[in-house]
Amino acid sequence: MITFFYVEPENVGEDNLKIFGEEAMHITTVLRYKKGEVIEVVDGKGGKYKVMIASAEKNLIEGKILSKTLLENEPKVFLTLAQSIGKGMKMDWVIEKGTEIGVSSFIPLVTLRTSVPLGEEREKTRLQRWRRVAISSMKQSLRSVLPDIQKITSLDELLLKVEDFDLVLFGSLDEQAKKMKSLARFKKTLKKLLVIVGPEGGFTEEEKQKLIQAGAIPVNLGKRRLRTETAGIVFCSLVLYEWRDLG
Amino acid sequence: MITFFYVEPENVGEDNLKIFGEEAMHITTVLRYKKGEVIEVVDGKGGKYKVMIASAEKNLIEGKILSKTLLENEPKVFLTLAQSIGKGMKMDWVIEKGTEIGVSSFIPLVTLRTSVPLGEEREKTRLQRWRRVAISSMKQSLRSVLPDIQKITSLDELLLKVEDFDLVLFGSLDEQAKKMKSLARFKKTLKKLLVIVGPEGGFTEEEKQKLIQAGAIPVNLGKRRLRTETAGIVFCSLVLYEWRDLG
Repeated sequence: MITFFYVEPENVGEDNLKIFGEEAMHITTVLRYKKGEVIEVVDGKGGKYKVMIASAEKNLIEGKILSKTLLENEPKVFLTLAQSIGKGMKMDWVIEKGTEIGVSSFIPLVTLRTSVPLGEEREKTRLQRWRRVAISSMKQSLRSVLPDIQKITSLDELLLKVEDFDLVLFGSLDEQAKKMKSLARFKKTLKKLLVIVGPEGGFTEEEKQKLIQAGAIPVNLGKRRLRTETAGIVFCSLVLYEWRDLG
Repeated sequence: MITFFYVEPENVGEDNLKIFGEEAMHITTVLRYKKGEVIEVVDGKGGKYKVMIASAEKNLIEGKILSKTLLENEPKVFLTLAQSIGKGMKMDWVIEKGTEIGVSSFIPLVTLRTSVPLGEEREKTRLQRWRRVAISSMKQSLRSVLPDIQKITSLDELLLKVEDFDLVLFGSLDEQAKKMKSLARFKKTLKKLLVIVGPEGGFTEEEKQKLIQAGAIPVNLGKRRLRTETAGIVFCSLVLYEWRDLG
């Protein structure tokens, strides 16, 4: 089975690269790669390298770059998921699965009914953990670009960014919302997409009105009520599918 | 927010029903429902009842059935997911999310590369746990039918059942497999569908040949490699979407 490893992009030189710390340890101690063997390494910026191990110590691998390819296995569409932070590990899970299917950027979202008691310290720890989850998932899914994990953002802050996107959709339980199948009718030339998913209790009426005024389109995820993290992944799967970027 | 409760179908009478144990405790002690209040109850067999609480004790609720509806929020298609059992809680997760999106039956699958050391005792515990996950997810997603969780099944046993289905698909990484978008071209009059998802390491060549000989159609889930549980949920989401049973 193919395995990708991760190199911090600042440790990639002209014709060699260095892998430090845990990732090096994993390669040498757990997987027991030796000098002279060839591994595949991604830098999270779109670069994938075939690398011959020149020296392998426990905490440091130095490798000679044999070849480089660009943007391996990346979707053509740039999909951002603004996901209301759920309790416990829900957001970790969304980042893990979202990275696998092809989401390019995550915005951890706070709405009126999102209940996350996050101090500044806690937020920093979370963002670091989410980044580790994304790195692991990027490798697992054979992607070469590390999805961007943005800072925790309120709905009002998000609404200021809406204009940067070609198309903005949000999950809705309202009968008047567009049916999911209407995704098929959006122009596939739209490339910068934003999907917004609210908390378990949904957006408030006021939040919905703000979203609609900002140009976001409500999409009904069906009559079976999905947990917030399920909604995020199912919604993104269907968008990527309709844009021919899944399977 | 609407909440559904669960009643064991054998405890439903002509015009009244009884809820015992944990579920009763949850209703009385946690949610503090009282005599005279009206709750919505599903029996997992397709029945949904509006029930007035006639008496509420800690471990027993007796209710008067005010009205009954059938098959609330159920998909029109009957989708069975045969999912290779992953490590840890992966199967729990597949059952949770699969129930939310509309899977009707789960077959925990063992293939050559599935690594689950399950004794008979362990299997019984797992099946009980999976059933609880399914009940909780049925309520959460406002379904009225409890998905069936079949016994742990080998691929050879599964192949004997393939003829019971109108259409059998399996996830494949092979280039020659059908593209996901070809789901759009299957006749939507086919109603009994089976989706088969292999383990992280994939099916062996021999297993693939057996599947194809049995009439199963390989479908490529795309170039980004999905974890087995992600593949199960994404595959089922797309099938339900194409059959107009999601959103």
